[in-house]
Amino acid sequence: MAAPLFFPAVTIIGVGLIGGSLAKVMKAKHLAGVITGAGRSREALEQALRLGVIDKGGQDVRRAVEQADLVLLASPVRSFSPIVREIGSAIKPGAILTDVGSVKGGMVRALEGLLPPGVRFVPGHPIAGREQHGVAAATETLFRGAKCILTPTARTDARALETVKDLWAATGASVVVMDPDLHDQVFAAVSHMPHVAAFAMMNAVAELGSGRESYLQFSGAGFRDFTRIAASSPEMWRDICLLNGKNIVDMIDRYQSSLDLMKRKIQDGAAEELEDLFKQASDVRRGMQ
Amino acid sequence: MAAPLFFPAVTIIGVGLIGGSLAKVMKAKHLAGVITGAGRSREALEQALRLGVIDKGGQDVRRAVEQADLVLLASPVRSFSPIVREIGSAIKPGAILTDVGSVKGGMVRALEGLLPPGVRFVPGHPIAGREQHGVAAATETLFRGAKCILTPTARTDARALETVKDLWAATGASVVVMDPDLHDQVFAAVSHMPHVAAFAMMNAVAELGSGRESYLQFSGAGFRDFTRIAASSPEMWRDICLLNGKNIVDMIDRYQSSLDLMKRKIQDGAAEELEDLFKQASDVRRGMQ
Repeated sequence: MAAPLFFPAVTIIGVGLIGGSLAKVMKAKHLAGVITGAGRSREALEQALRLGVIDKGGQDVRRAVEQADLVLLASPVRSFSPIVREIGSAIKPGAILTDVGSVKGGMVRALEGLLPPGVRFVPGHPIAGREQHGVAAATETLFRGAKCILTPTARTDARALETVKDLWAATGASVVVMDPDLHDQVFAAVSHMPHVAAFAMMNAVAELGSGRESYLQFSGAGFRDFTRIAASSPEMWRDICLLNGKNIVDMIDRYQSSLDLMKRKIQDGAAEELEDLFKQASDVRRGMQ
Repeated sequence: MAAPLFFPAVTIIGVGLIGGSLAKVMKAKHLAGVITGAGRSREALEQALRLGVIDKGGQDVRRAVEQADLVLLASPVRSFSPIVREIGSAIKPGAILTDVGSVKGGMVRALEGLLPPGVRFVPGHPIAGREQHGVAAATETLFRGAKCILTPTARTDARALETVKDLWAATGASVVVMDPDLHDQVFAAVSHMPHVAAFAMMNAVAELGSGRESYLQFSGAGFRDFTRIAASSPEMWRDICLLNGKNIVDMIDRYQSSLDLMKRKIQDGAAEELEDLFKQASDVRRGMQ
């Protein structure tokens, strides 16, 4: 796999928004010969074929990976272990396996334990998404300007890591290399816990009032912004919470301490200290965009 | 003050985004004769004059209200009591005083206690805002499609209430009449507590990592949506928290219970119950937009 970057045969398991978008980039930039889509949903594969996102499609993931030089795991993260158990021994020695899962630490160790030595696994996580899902929403600009985290371990092949870096750089993403356990701490803080917080907020407010008198009818743009992520997939977030539970619970604790402190200042009528706490938050937030 | 709706002399105290936008609507719809702006900031008044939002401006609020048929309090909510103490006896008998403050219950009772009997006070709260502040951001479309809550009490003059209803209806807002104490409960739930939660979230996450390694650099669109309201004015939210503290603390408690429940389910690895909780939130949120 020398320069220029080219994979004669690519297999994408899970041709949804992310897998489909990467396929589109690889086609547009001539980085791939034949792209095969694989996964459980025949409907999704047929749609991807119709849209020209993949060249071939099949529900037998083991057969789909046999010829591949690059295998991309882009199915729901809960499916990674069973899929790798199924396909591991069918992947060509020397081929690269990479993924786009939003949990890394323990998951990376588990997958490494399941793979035969010849398969070169490079764990990855592109920070991209949009409100729409599925291959119909896939676009070759999805990763442009986004970050893509790669989380190699001591077992990761250095040249395969460089190749996967080049692949993500070609999508327009900026690549960051990070320890897999640190990744899970960071994303518990900036993504996983905030999703739990948004779900919890919705449930706390939704039960107030009822029908036409529901409190929610008085919510403004701020509340809608705040809870937008509460519309996310319950299944996906259940899985993430189970796979990164320890870090998420730690972050909920940290968040609750911050909330407790503000609550106490409100109860005490401590105007100045409350303003200082709000100002600290407001200054950081204003610096963010 | 019979139909058609017309106020020969209007005084707006605090010509910022809200006060300025209402002035613009009244000019565009020919609802006002002379509009006088009043407030502490000479700069803001000069800007409002230059922009043609007001016809006259003055820093002496007492003098500014003497001729007014309608007085609008649109300054920061903490200034309401001192201002009403100052202007109350200068307002013409029969004139209408209304406000746009985001707390009502105790504040309404306090203002009623300060006013002479001849002044007809109609408490109000338009649910409108935008990221920009100040009179330069004022627009006559700000209230279109928004809700405006009016919170009359047993002491509110029924005809003055109808007049203020008509005024807000003319802005394109839909008017809702609500008990002032219920208003404060509702807005603690859908606005005040979520702002505290966003401030607390920012503080909890901002302290993690440092400099170029700050966790925040990995935040995506979801986190930015979630914390957008944490960029709000610390002074304003300090005031709201002090004026509606009891309700806000109750809502923080309720929110923390909802968060605790999810935390326990994560710790227990209770997949199904966690998914149910997330699904409940996700279903309500998806139904909202």
